[in-house]
Formats: sequence, C-alpha cells, structure tokens
Amino acid sequence: MITDGRFMVQGREETSGIRIIRQKGSLFESAGRQLKAAGLKHVGFDPTQISVAQLQSLRKSAGARCRWKRVAGRVEKLRMRKDEGELAQMRKAAILVGEVFEAVLPMIRPGVREFEVAAEIEYQMRKRGASGPSFETIVAFGTRSALPHARPTAKRLRKNELVVLDLGVILGHYCSDMTRTIFVGKAPARIRTWYRAVLEAQRAGVAAVKSGVSCDEVDGAARRVLAGYRLESLFVHSTGHGLGLEVHEEPRVARGEKKLLEPGNVITIEPGVYAEGIGGIRIEDDVAVHANRSEELTRVPRDLIEL
Amino acid sequence: MITDGRFMVQGREETSGIRIIRQKGSLFESAGRQLKAAGLKHVGFDPTQISVAQLQSLRKSAGARCRWKRVAGRVEKLRMRKDEGELAQMRKAAILVGEVFEAVLPMIRPGVREFEVAAEIEYQMRKRGASGPSFETIVAFGTRSALPHARPTAKRLRKNELVVLDLGVILGHYCSDMTRTIFVGKAPARIRTWYRAVLEAQRAGVAAVKSGVSCDEVDGAARRVLAGYRLESLFVHSTGHGLGLEVHEEPRVARGEKKLLEPGNVITIEPGVYAEGIGGIRIEDDVAVHANRSEELTRVPRDLIEL
Repeated sequence: MITDGRFMVQGREETSGIRIIRQKGSLFESAGRQLKAAGLKHVGFDPTQISVAQLQSLRKSAGARCRWKRVAGRVEKLRMRKDEGELAQMRKAAILVGEVFEAVLPMIRPGVREFEVAAEIEYQMRKRGASGPSFETIVAFGTRSALPHARPTAKRLRKNELVVLDLGVILGHYCSDMTRTIFVGKAPARIRTWYRAVLEAQRAGVAAVKSGVSCDEVDGAARRVLAGYRLESLFVHSTGHGLGLEVHEEPRVARGEKKLLEPGNVITIEPGVYAEGIGGIRIEDDVAVHANRSEELTRVPRDLIEL
Repeated sequence: MITDGRFMVQGREETSGIRIIRQKGSLFESAGRQLKAAGLKHVGFDPTQISVAQLQSLRKSAGARCRWKRVAGRVEKLRMRKDEGELAQMRKAAILVGEVFEAVLPMIRPGVREFEVAAEIEYQMRKRGASGPSFETIVAFGTRSALPHARPTAKRLRKNELVVLDLGVILGHYCSDMTRTIFVGKAPARIRTWYRAVLEAQRAGVAAVKSGVSCDEVDGAARRVLAGYRLESLFVHSTGHGLGLEVHEEPRVARGEKKLLEPGNVITIEPGVYAEGIGGIRIEDDVAVHANRSEELTRVPRDLIEL
C-alpha cells in the first residue's frame, strides 16, 4: 500500500501483513517508481479507474521497459463474490438500516418536511455506528414519490399521501439499501391494488434469486407480475443491482443481463410503479445468494403501512 | 449541457441560456457525436478529469477528423478567483459551520463517543439548511487526535484528553472548513505550549495572507513559528488549501508553491502538531484574499478551550 505521511499511522492500524510505502511526490509517481524498482515488464491497469494524466504519470515514472495492458473490471468481478466475513458485515448493515427505519417511523405524520425526515434518518444511522448513508437518503411525499431519485425538499407531508423512504447505511465499509412505502391515512382501492402488485412482484423477484439463475430471469420474475396487473409501463427502472463496498456494484439485475448468480453475490430486489401526478410505490430488500438457498438480509415487514 | 432522461426537467430548471441535449448511449458517446456533428477539428480535454476509457469512447464517437489536445486545469484556474456572489455564499457557509461548532460544544463531555459527536454535527448542519458536510467530519479524542484524518469511531471521551473537531458544510454549493482543538480538563504544560505554538503559527499564516504574496511564503510564515518551538517535525502536512465548490481546490498553500495570491482566492490556514501516542492539535480558519486586505470568514474564538 502506498500512502502519504498523513495516513501512515492509520495505514498500519487498519492493515496486517501489508507493506506500507510512504508516498514521495504524487501517488502515481510513487507507484511508477515501485513498478520500476520491482523490474516489472507487464502491468495491467483499469482504464475506467485511471485518468489520462495518471496513466501518463505512471508510464513516465515506471520507465520504458514496462508494457501496459488494459484490463477493465477485474476488481469489480472479484468484489461480486463476498466471503463469509463480508457477508457477516453486510448482515449487520442490513439489520441497522431496518432499525433506523423503525426508529423514524413515528415521525411520519402530517406537517413534517421531507428534509427533516432525511436528517433524522441520517442522524439515527450515525448514532448507531454507521459511518454514514450509503447514498443520499430518499424521502418523497405525495406526487414527489413518483420520482425514483427524488431529493428531499421542504415539502410538508399531508394526509392521504404516499411516502417513499429509500435508505441505506455504510457500516464497517459495507452498504445496505432498503425501501418501504407508507400511506398516510386509509389507502384508496387503486393504491392498495398497486401496492399488492409491487409486493407480489418483489416477492417473486426474491423467490427467483438462486445460484445458477440469470439476472435477466430474476428481473423477468418481478416484471411478469407487474405485467399481469397491466402495470409494466409504470415500472421504469430495472429490478435491482449488486451491493457491497459500494451501493451500486455488479451484477445489474436487469433485462437482458445474462450473468448467472453465484454464491456470495448480494443484490437488491426493488420493483416499483411510478405514476406522474399520483405517486410511486417501491419495496426493496437486499438478498444474498448461497449455494443452496438465498438469504434476505433486510427483514423489516413489507405489508402496506397505513398511518 | 448533455444529460440523461432523468435530469432533463431539472436541467432546464437550473440553467438559463444553455441548450440541453438528451444523452443517448453513454455520456461520452453522446459528447463525441455532438463534436462530430459540429464538425470540430481541434478539441481540448482535461487529462486529469477524464479516464483512459472515457477518452477512448470520445475519440471513437467523434471520429478520426478530430484532433485532441491536453489542456489541464483550465476550469480550476477560473474557479480560484471567486466573484462577489461566490464570496457572499462562502461567508454564509463559514458562519454556519461556526454556529454548528458552538451548538455541539456542550456535548463534549467524558463518556460521549466520537461518532455520536459526528452525528450531532452533521445533523445540526442539515437542520440549519446545509446540503451536508463538505467532507467526512473529523472527531478525534485522545491519542486518536494524532491522526490528521481520523474517522469517528466508538471511542468514548475520557478526562484529560485532547479533542480535535474538523468540520465543514456545503451551503448553496459552496464549502467551509474549520478546525478547533479542545482539552477536557486542565491542560498540562506541554499541551499548553504546543497549543500556543500552533495558535501563533496559525495567526502568522493568516497574517501573511495578502494579494501578491506566494503560497510558499504563507506556508513558511506558519512553519517558521513551529520551527521556533522545535515542533516543525510534528507538522506533517501543508499549511492549507483552496476552498470553493470543492473542499480541496487550488491553490495549495504548501512549501515550494510559487503561485501568488490574488483577489478572490479563498484558502484555509490550518497548521497542526501530531505526536503519536499523545495526540494532535490543529486550528483552521478560512481566509478570503481582497485587493488590499484579507478577510477571515470563520470567526469562532481560537483560545484553548478547557472543559
């Protein structure tokens, strides 16, 4: 590991069995010099992770003997298969996000603002030991819930509105990601039907998660349920995504994705329906793939909450 | 501006006089096609901002007629000179971080955990209208304060420990960044001496900030004071950095930096001393450069706080 003077102590504390080299000049100059000193002739680099200037700096300091080969996505592929230690950490991150959801639920009352709920959610995350949210927390009331990526605003909650809460934590470097939808009041028949459709689709997606099954099949399992309710056109994104050190990782759980699930994969299953001017409904859980079974990491009840 | 379907509405809302183009395929494919359609033959790109893979994608879609020229740092240079509107926003961000610091000070008591203080700090930021912290808030107790970039842990505060709080907000897109050091109890003579040295160094650094003076001179002004106390070896980083839309911008206030300060620059001045096994002391303020004077944006008292 190469790092600068500010991180030498921390580097020693947080690693074991790794040589820590003090950076001299820029990071990429230091790395290039190490490659040169090691006499390496063939070096792979990830073109999606390195800027044009960084590659130039590496090449220069590593010297002319070094041959550079583009190898994209190697680390991401390794990261798809979580080991037992990683899965243990992801279980904790998933449990924690559920606790935060349940802690803020009493706040969901007419008059509260979206950003107040978001601030409370992120406060509860940190208070319970998370290093922070794994993405900008989504709190969307009423018609704003029809925006899949709504940012919290000053909007106040009113009676008879939908509430979408999409939240995740980073705990010990690993992410969780969970969505629940609430109705403030007694939900009308159409909302109940839509909710039932999304929940059935989500359950079908989760049930399809199995080692050896393709991501396309999992996406299809959720999508077919919504099609059965004639709601497919309101489902405007893919069914899910991988989760780990980052909140969006491989594999994508989307139409046409041929990748077969393997033990150690962790993915979200999050179908939704979005109707402009009315609102949105989404239910999301995190699922780990094992050799002979799958495991839901997030375990908060999924029935429609009417407050 | 090129953006995807999810941001077309927001793009029109948040710009004026700019044509907004809907992205097709990847962003860089879309950009390349626009360049091709415009028939451009010479295109400058910033090699520090574009990955090797992105440049490859741009080149391919722009076609062979396009010549590519590396022009690094153009935008960063423009951003160094803040205009009056930007300075007004940065003043507000600096005032807000001071208010947050004073709001959380009563929490600094034996028994509190680092991450509880960090959570409260970031909650107070959002409650007061910040879009969030401008970097991961540093709360470091006891020997952990010797890590200049300590991340908050579950460690509880004990009597007779140092506390370093390094925090900043993003308010209306602009950043602030401030550090104060506290001693819980009556500070022993050595800590008092070190604190006095850091404060003198920091005041010397701030006093040196002036249009026409080089960043190297400002760094030297702070560094010489610590050298006078024979503490220079414990000052393991540079004196400061530019601040604006990002929390680390040009210019760097470091040894050997020849750049001359100009009106509109905003920099931090943040000398510190760090002793492994003992602790660290850092004091940081944000300073704006004007034609005939400098202006401290952060205005929280700097005397040693003993709680």
